[in-house]
Amino acid sequence: MHDFNEEFYNKVALVDDILEECLSDKDNSQLQKEIYESMSYSVMAGGKRLRPILVLEAYNLFEGKDEKEVYPYMAAIEMIHTYSLIHDDLPAMDNDDYRRGRLTNHKVYGEDMAILTGDGLLNLAYETMIKSVDEKNVSKSIKAMNIISNKAGVSGMIGGQVGDIKNVNKDMDIETLDKINELKTSCLIEGSLMMGATMAGASDKELESICMAGSLIGKAFQIQDDVLDVISDSKTLGKPVLSDEKNQKKTYVDLLGIDGAKEQVRNLSDKALKIIKELGNNEFLVTLIERLVNRDH
Amino acid sequence: MHDFNEEFYNKVALVDDILEECLSDKDNSQLQKEIYESMSYSVMAGGKRLRPILVLEAYNLFEGKDEKEVYPYMAAIEMIHTYSLIHDDLPAMDNDDYRRGRLTNHKVYGEDMAILTGDGLLNLAYETMIKSVDEKNVSKSIKAMNIISNKAGVSGMIGGQVGDIKNVNKDMDIETLDKINELKTSCLIEGSLMMGATMAGASDKELESICMAGSLIGKAFQIQDDVLDVISDSKTLGKPVLSDEKNQKKTYVDLLGIDGAKEQVRNLSDKALKIIKELGNNEFLVTLIERLVNRDH
Repeated sequence: MHDFNEEFYNKVALVDDILEECLSDKDNSQLQKEIYESMSYSVMAGGKRLRPILVLEAYNLFEGKDEKEVYPYMAAIEMIHTYSLIHDDLPAMDNDDYRRGRLTNHKVYGEDMAILTGDGLLNLAYETMIKSVDEKNVSKSIKAMNIISNKAGVSGMIGGQVGDIKNVNKDMDIETLDKINELKTSCLIEGSLMMGATMAGASDKELESICMAGSLIGKAFQIQDDVLDVISDSKTLGKPVLSDEKNQKKTYVDLLGIDGAKEQVRNLSDKALKIIKELGNNEFLVTLIERLVNRDH
Repeated sequence: MHDFNEEFYNKVALVDDILEECLSDKDNSQLQKEIYESMSYSVMAGGKRLRPILVLEAYNLFEGKDEKEVYPYMAAIEMIHTYSLIHDDLPAMDNDDYRRGRLTNHKVYGEDMAILTGDGLLNLAYETMIKSVDEKNVSKSIKAMNIISNKAGVSGMIGGQVGDIKNVNKDMDIETLDKINELKTSCLIEGSLMMGATMAGASDKELESICMAGSLIGKAFQIQDDVLDVISDSKTLGKPVLSDEKNQKKTYVDLLGIDGAKEQVRNLSDKALKIIKELGNNEFLVTLIERLVNRDH
């Protein structure tokens, strides 16, 4: 295979370009300047761009013909992910000072701006998708937007965040933790893969399969996050370690132990890879998922 | 004319029914139950339902044939308005304890839930609109969603809120105050009227005119709000009076005086009514706008 790392960094650079274009201030007025700056601060903080790359790679898995048609969805999913982090980091929520190795949005711009910045990004995600709809791809676009509005909403990610804040300090069993993480983390992964697949014209049955793969990847990803929160150091991770302990959140490590959690990550990703390989041929996507669950940050 | 008040209350009841349907929890899980309850608390707090009624009446002004096709947009605009109030009332923003005569969302459900409740409503607004698109009305629907995503976003309402928080305590001239209020208040009024008109099949020229009417109504509405904040009592208004003074916000009353502000309200609404009467025949809408600018709460 060709060099995975080089290909990965090229894709990250593509995502960055797409996002920068979406976040360039067309109004050019002083009022908008401040919020565009704050939105850019958090969006352009150099994340792994996992979700937009999953949109793109699901599109490629189903042999989509013109990758430009998923650019708006790649931008939108990263804006949705980033808004949720900005709001999650607020003092009234997780109260985190660092994210992706730099100060969180409210530490730089203030709590009021951070609230509006999150709102602005969520709205801009939809604005970007809606603006991109044209006659050629209208029914696929509506289907993709239906998927993400559901996965990002109260039936999806936001529902998971509610579960998160409501279950702090509570004695939680593994079923409840699974359900919260399915909503909080897996839903956006599922949505990413499903949007890319939809835009490439995948069938409903194929969408169901890739949704299942997303669910398994999301769960593996979340368990790995919990493991890293315990065993990593804050410089490698870019955020404080043991933050779950500080916030008294139950994690998979509490329930399964370090070794049990690591084994679970392996099982889940094996199952996800099996599904993906059955759906099509995308070596890059397979390697990406393998690396994700072996990451140290 | 037939009884305006009776007709108005029937329309409010219709809006309430539409919103209740949107906010009925289809997931039926404990995680979602809590956020649906919190969203309903704020949405069903008995506001004037001005924006959804403007959607409906703009649709009627342009002789739309099946009013059910604007129901999703009526629900969406009220959810967007309500989310912005919930976030605006947070301690990090205006720090208000009362809204529409009852405790603000964060006073009842906590700040963390209030943040997520606002996010949930904004997302649900888009989810509701997107879900309603069908083959029959697809191009009108995309156009309506383009309008509202722009008017509610950083180029519109959110931009105005940024102006609001950035200009507290600053010596502001009337041009800056106008610009902030245009974005913060008028944009959603414009969006309401334009969405209704779009769904009824109005031309681009007609959309431009009704947008102008919305801008004038929004400005009149905001000035009237400032006047009421000074002269009303908190029981009639349903929220604390002199809150602008408490928050050291510049208002039109500061810049124009009470009488100047009242005269301005009259002039603006006269101009708006002239435009509306030229566009079509809707006696209810005309009376609604007249009453709005003579309201005492």
